[in-house]
Amino acid sequence: MNNFDYKNPTKIIFGKGEISKIAIEIPENSKVLMLYGGGSIKKNGIYEQVVDALNGFDFVEFGGIPANPEYDILMDALAVIKEQKIDFLLAVGGGSVIDGTKFLSSAALFEGDHPWDILDKKIPTQKGMPFGTVLTLPATGSEMNSGAVITRKETKEKLVMGGPGLFPVFSILDPSVVASIPERQVANGLADSFTHVLEQYMTYPIEANLQDRFAESILQTIIEVAPKILKDPSDYKAAANFMWSCTMALNGLIQKGVPTDWAIHMMGHELTALYGIDHARTLAILAGSHYTYNFETKKAKLAQYAERVWNITEGTIDEKAKAGIQKTVEFFHSIGIQTKLSEYTSEYEGTGKEVARRLAERGMTGLGEHGRLAPEDAERIVEKAY
Amino acid sequence: MNNFDYKNPTKIIFGKGEISKIAIEIPENSKVLMLYGGGSIKKNGIYEQVVDALNGFDFVEFGGIPANPEYDILMDALAVIKEQKIDFLLAVGGGSVIDGTKFLSSAALFEGDHPWDILDKKIPTQKGMPFGTVLTLPATGSEMNSGAVITRKETKEKLVMGGPGLFPVFSILDPSVVASIPERQVANGLADSFTHVLEQYMTYPIEANLQDRFAESILQTIIEVAPKILKDPSDYKAAANFMWSCTMALNGLIQKGVPTDWAIHMMGHELTALYGIDHARTLAILAGSHYTYNFETKKAKLAQYAERVWNITEGTIDEKAKAGIQKTVEFFHSIGIQTKLSEYTSEYEGTGKEVARRLAERGMTGLGEHGRLAPEDAERIVEKAY
Repeated sequence: MNNFDYKNPTKIIFGKGEISKIAIEIPENSKVLMLYGGGSIKKNGIYEQVVDALNGFDFVEFGGIPANPEYDILMDALAVIKEQKIDFLLAVGGGSVIDGTKFLSSAALFEGDHPWDILDKKIPTQKGMPFGTVLTLPATGSEMNSGAVITRKETKEKLVMGGPGLFPVFSILDPSVVASIPERQVANGLADSFTHVLEQYMTYPIEANLQDRFAESILQTIIEVAPKILKDPSDYKAAANFMWSCTMALNGLIQKGVPTDWAIHMMGHELTALYGIDHARTLAILAGSHYTYNFETKKAKLAQYAERVWNITEGTIDEKAKAGIQKTVEFFHSIGIQTKLSEYTSEYEGTGKEVARRLAERGMTGLGEHGRLAPEDAERIVEKAY
Repeated sequence: MNNFDYKNPTKIIFGKGEISKIAIEIPENSKVLMLYGGGSIKKNGIYEQVVDALNGFDFVEFGGIPANPEYDILMDALAVIKEQKIDFLLAVGGGSVIDGTKFLSSAALFEGDHPWDILDKKIPTQKGMPFGTVLTLPATGSEMNSGAVITRKETKEKLVMGGPGLFPVFSILDPSVVASIPERQVANGLADSFTHVLEQYMTYPIEANLQDRFAESILQTIIEVAPKILKDPSDYKAAANFMWSCTMALNGLIQKGVPTDWAIHMMGHELTALYGIDHARTLAILAGSHYTYNFETKKAKLAQYAERVWNITEGTIDEKAKAGIQKTVEFFHSIGIQTKLSEYTSEYEGTGKEVARRLAERGMTGLGEHGRLAPEDAERIVEKAY
């Protein structure tokens, strides 16, 4: 097990009917900016619950934060924060709204002239404007971590940011919100959280037994609830397990003391930036291809995964490892997600080269748990996924 | 899954050679009281490491906090805190030293005349004097939770306290400390952490799939590392898994959203208070008896445990559940811990009645996950354990 530091101060408030607790958690006399996305919260009753809970607070709204939160739109929200002297942010949404709010938390206190520098120059946020979240879409884990991904259409860029100042003060996780999420988004959440765990697990063994088993626990739970939640998103028990699994998949715990990969995400971000493919689906496109390309360095963990998560007990290490990859691809298909780039765009030719070029441009020349995947490797991995 | 709140702000600093980081974590200009136990830290080099790390701080020492931290001794330490105008506490030890430090953290800011009231009147601590810990004995999880157990010899009492103000600011977990722990204490740590998980798991199913699997993960890891660590406590990899498992067993995570029992602990505390039996061993004495006595209400989880943790796949629910109890008792034996009260004291006659009397006196008339175990039930459970 590697040495590690772990601190996660976010307060989780989990369960049916908990949205009203916002009022207790936001400091009195705060001037609040409530941020949300395309307006689905106005159709499913969450908007009313939040506005009711904010009764007595001085608050302003900012809606319209899109999937893959867009820098230009966030800059409009930043202007509102400055004009209105906002001092507490409340994100009501999924990973995109929460990530956008994290950017604003950082940018609101940023002292430089160009907030894009936070992303472009990789400036960690030590202190941000305090914010809470009401999660409406389980998937990214952003509700209990300190990272965010921001997109800039102008330059077709999708970059990561983070820092110890970007943990939400509180996050309200009410699984009953899952009932009104469209099937496509539920499937995305399942694929996203599943791949989050894989990125922190599918590396090489270092006898971090507990971390391995926690990761396997989350994978097993997602596999178990996936058919239930897709069949009936109003199944509260399945929704609760789905929601808590998504949070635990990326709140930092399972990555402590172990090597992590994240190459699938780095390549996937480029596919979203290039073609607008849903984040989760880019991960499903690349996972099988990535594991096949890196079979030799990953096969020990692939075999352990096949055995413990998929109950594949027969065969050699190589056979089990291959079966593990196959099961992963089949899992994505079982939740209605295609795993070939050509199923998303007809203009896939040359994508490998373009992804490689963009990674090289950003200095991402050593991806993966060994830091040894060069842009040319990414090129071949993406090509394998056509 | 039940609704829950979860917040754990303790910073964990894990790994070999991390003790020197104390200096970064304690606020500058603090006046520090360093607390420790019987002096084993002076034999294994930890004392020197801590004192080196405190170089530059104004600090005072207080040694001699015994196992089952004793109120009278802690009151002496409290006098030092007041006299010396201490404003940061540093516990260097196992659960007893850390629990004692939590009492001091609370008592130092307590406004009443009698700090015993914190325990006797069950006053939750909202704010305590800040403290950090250097863990020298993995077992209780106290290094990452906000609870403590304090003993008062005078009245043969052992009572619990806690509150959101009692999380350590930081805890340093260096698994290399395990190398110098006597075998008896290592066995105690294994039994203690194992039973901590059982108390939060062996209740009834409520489809909290992820929490169940996390609990099973910790149990499996403890079972896996137990023989390694007993054979060779300097096996760093095994020690790291042992240490992290002990912390995760009782840092609050696995109990969120599920029913918990804790009857074994409540009865066990009385056995320690009456006979001075090591805490962990009282748990081992009572576990099998408790599960046998409450077989009908617990058998569904007992069977799941037998299947997933011990790989017992044949038989009816009842048969698997019984095998689960048997395996638990055998596990304690395998780590050299006896499971009958008569193996610890020849004066066991009447203990059941006395434990029942003491529980009744303290108003503990509804123990267990259903709150339905009366003192007479405790009496029979203890008697079954003779």
